[in-house]
Amino acid sequence: MNHKIGLMGFGVVGQGYHTIAESHDNDLLPYQIVIKEQNKSRPQNLPFIFNAEKLIDEAEIGIELISDSDAAYKFIRAFLERGKRVITANKKVIAANLPELIALQKQYGGSILYEAAVAASIPVICNLQTQYYGDEILEIKGILNGSSNYILSQIFRHNLSLHDALALAQKEGFAEADPSFDINGSDVASKLTILITHAFNEYHPEASIPFYGIEAIGSEEIDLARTLGLTIKLIASATKTAEGVTAYIFPTFVDSSDAISAIEWEYNCVKIKSKNLGEQFFKGKGAGSLPTGSAVYSDLVKMIAGFKYQYAENIPKETELRPISTILTVTMKTTHGDKLKRYGINEAEIIHTADAAWFVGDITTEFFLANKSAFIGDAISIINIGSSVTAETVKKALIKLKYKEHLLISE
Amino acid sequence: MNHKIGLMGFGVVGQGYHTIAESHDNDLLPYQIVIKEQNKSRPQNLPFIFNAEKLIDEAEIGIELISDSDAAYKFIRAFLERGKRVITANKKVIAANLPELIALQKQYGGSILYEAAVAASIPVICNLQTQYYGDEILEIKGILNGSSNYILSQIFRHNLSLHDALALAQKEGFAEADPSFDINGSDVASKLTILITHAFNEYHPEASIPFYGIEAIGSEEIDLARTLGLTIKLIASATKTAEGVTAYIFPTFVDSSDAISAIEWEYNCVKIKSKNLGEQFFKGKGAGSLPTGSAVYSDLVKMIAGFKYQYAENIPKETELRPISTILTVTMKTTHGDKLKRYGINEAEIIHTADAAWFVGDITTEFFLANKSAFIGDAISIINIGSSVTAETVKKALIKLKYKEHLLISE
Repeated sequence: MNHKIGLMGFGVVGQGYHTIAESHDNDLLPYQIVIKEQNKSRPQNLPFIFNAEKLIDEAEIGIELISDSDAAYKFIRAFLERGKRVITANKKVIAANLPELIALQKQYGGSILYEAAVAASIPVICNLQTQYYGDEILEIKGILNGSSNYILSQIFRHNLSLHDALALAQKEGFAEADPSFDINGSDVASKLTILITHAFNEYHPEASIPFYGIEAIGSEEIDLARTLGLTIKLIASATKTAEGVTAYIFPTFVDSSDAISAIEWEYNCVKIKSKNLGEQFFKGKGAGSLPTGSAVYSDLVKMIAGFKYQYAENIPKETELRPISTILTVTMKTTHGDKLKRYGINEAEIIHTADAAWFVGDITTEFFLANKSAFIGDAISIINIGSSVTAETVKKALIKLKYKEHLLISE
Repeated sequence: MNHKIGLMGFGVVGQGYHTIAESHDNDLLPYQIVIKEQNKSRPQNLPFIFNAEKLIDEAEIGIELISDSDAAYKFIRAFLERGKRVITANKKVIAANLPELIALQKQYGGSILYEAAVAASIPVICNLQTQYYGDEILEIKGILNGSSNYILSQIFRHNLSLHDALALAQKEGFAEADPSFDINGSDVASKLTILITHAFNEYHPEASIPFYGIEAIGSEEIDLARTLGLTIKLIASATKTAEGVTAYIFPTFVDSSDAISAIEWEYNCVKIKSKNLGEQFFKGKGAGSLPTGSAVYSDLVKMIAGFKYQYAENIPKETELRPISTILTVTMKTTHGDKLKRYGINEAEIIHTADAAWFVGDITTEFFLANKSAFIGDAISIINIGSSVTAETVKKALIKLKYKEHLLISE
């Protein structure tokens, strides 16, 4: 029983899916594969084509696995407008257009699955869809980007610089050629937008989510974390409160008693708290050809068996939502105290170490969003202190570091 | 749309399911509830009945949540023989009769779901069914019994004796009135039989699985584990090898670098290794009214939506399988060296501490199975050393403990 599957893209994930289908079920191989670059060296004997139009009309199921978001969106939309079924791993396209994609499914009767778009091998969307009936999800938290986690592991475990760790991540295939989205938190924000929709039945577009990446983290934060016996992870968090959903993504100090601290390299994890189940924790590979290709392949099998995502009636909302503001205790580090003063921080609140000036205290996510571009411009590193230590402990550790540096300098 | 759901049993799990259905979807409440004891105090206004016969004929879907395995089996069989759908949390009945239950589904077109039977809130069966298409599972490992894990947590964290910890587990509702199956490993063996069927497409009845419980663990093993910087968990393990499936369940020394070591109290965990996905890890509550009732409720919603387990064509096999024998490095402890000598262990291999005699070395699971009743009769405690330390390190630690005891005694 051939399902006339049309594949768009033959990169890392596309090849992963293709390898699995080839060795397990030839009926699940694509009958045509749309690629862009005609001159690239490709495997022989595969049904490559260079134009998607005919495929969109003929294929029964589309699988979209390209990096060009505009083309991906058009491909997905074309399938849904024809009432067809489509699978994607493209978190950017899903996060940016989820209300519209939901509406298109309702209008034309097609369907879309995108398990591979969030945490690759972890079946988090399927679990949110099928394991929480009659339940109420209270919190979602996790590591959702394999590249930045790989980089943080290299920094903490092998003492690499951010620059060298990133180069290695690219070499190992865990980071994109343009890794900006991986390390600035934007990729995680897309994924959190998707998870919030499935967990809380609300659509918060990526731009509304306070997120910050790992780019500005330097050796000072690593030293500070080590002094405190902590590690740093890029953590996404979304919580249901009486006032609404809070959500944010920050590099975060994590204690070794937290299972998240043990997630290393390209692994991702998701912690889900709910009323009936208490805490659940899932760990799995968040990147890589076979783990991601396998999520696509499983979506395909489930899709053929009739599986569809169910969405709450109230999505899309008439107006988009944004997470409500919340208070975070953070460290902010930059080269000079003057840069911190621009944000209303007093000299008395600034701690100076040899090469850096620090603020340790509370900010609101609203304040963060209002100043985010300026923070990036000033190369300010921000780390969420989380619940692992108190601000006082961090301040004391910084003063100790300062004293230690002072001793070293005066020697 | 009422589905004419017939519930059998109104214990901890039945009440959990009922509470969830009551607050979320009255159409998913049972129209009748079969109970045995007529004189027990029950909530008012619920449709209790005392005879299952009419319900079996009338109900569209049956939910079986009683402790009496014979009655449970008859109830489940009756539904499947009528081509009806049935849900259960009864691991004993599933594990003992899986080939027959699979055959009944094929023959009469009914279906059965039993997510709650293994690791309660962890959707491990659903994940094995839906996330590993085109993949090959290599290993399953985990903590599958909340009661024994709760007891080990009390012993290690609060220094309770096994006896007191068990009493507390019963008081907290995490252990049965008759807790034998929880602490002797039999409950875990049932669950492993089910997981092996879904992961490896082979049926290994519970009796064929080498399993040993935590009953004989005394303060000596706790001291030994602490000396080694390890903890003890009751771990089930099944691995696919070129020769066949190996499977066993033993109390096991676990290093703090292993995520399993952090699973405390009534939590369970499952680690799955596969060819495409690498390692996946799931943690969630393995006992309790709402976590288990929620798994039943989710099965119900999925069942109504058309979800069925898929089984490989070759189950049931004409002959039942048994795990192939494998070598384990273990500690065996008892009161007197003579008891160890009965099993062919030489005096030279025995280490004597103040109150115990120990053997540290290799045994095969075949040897274990042949002598299991005798081991139990001799109250021999067996702990799998696992991969956390070497036998030599354990021996040295025992000799150190002996020396320490000697010093204390001679003071």
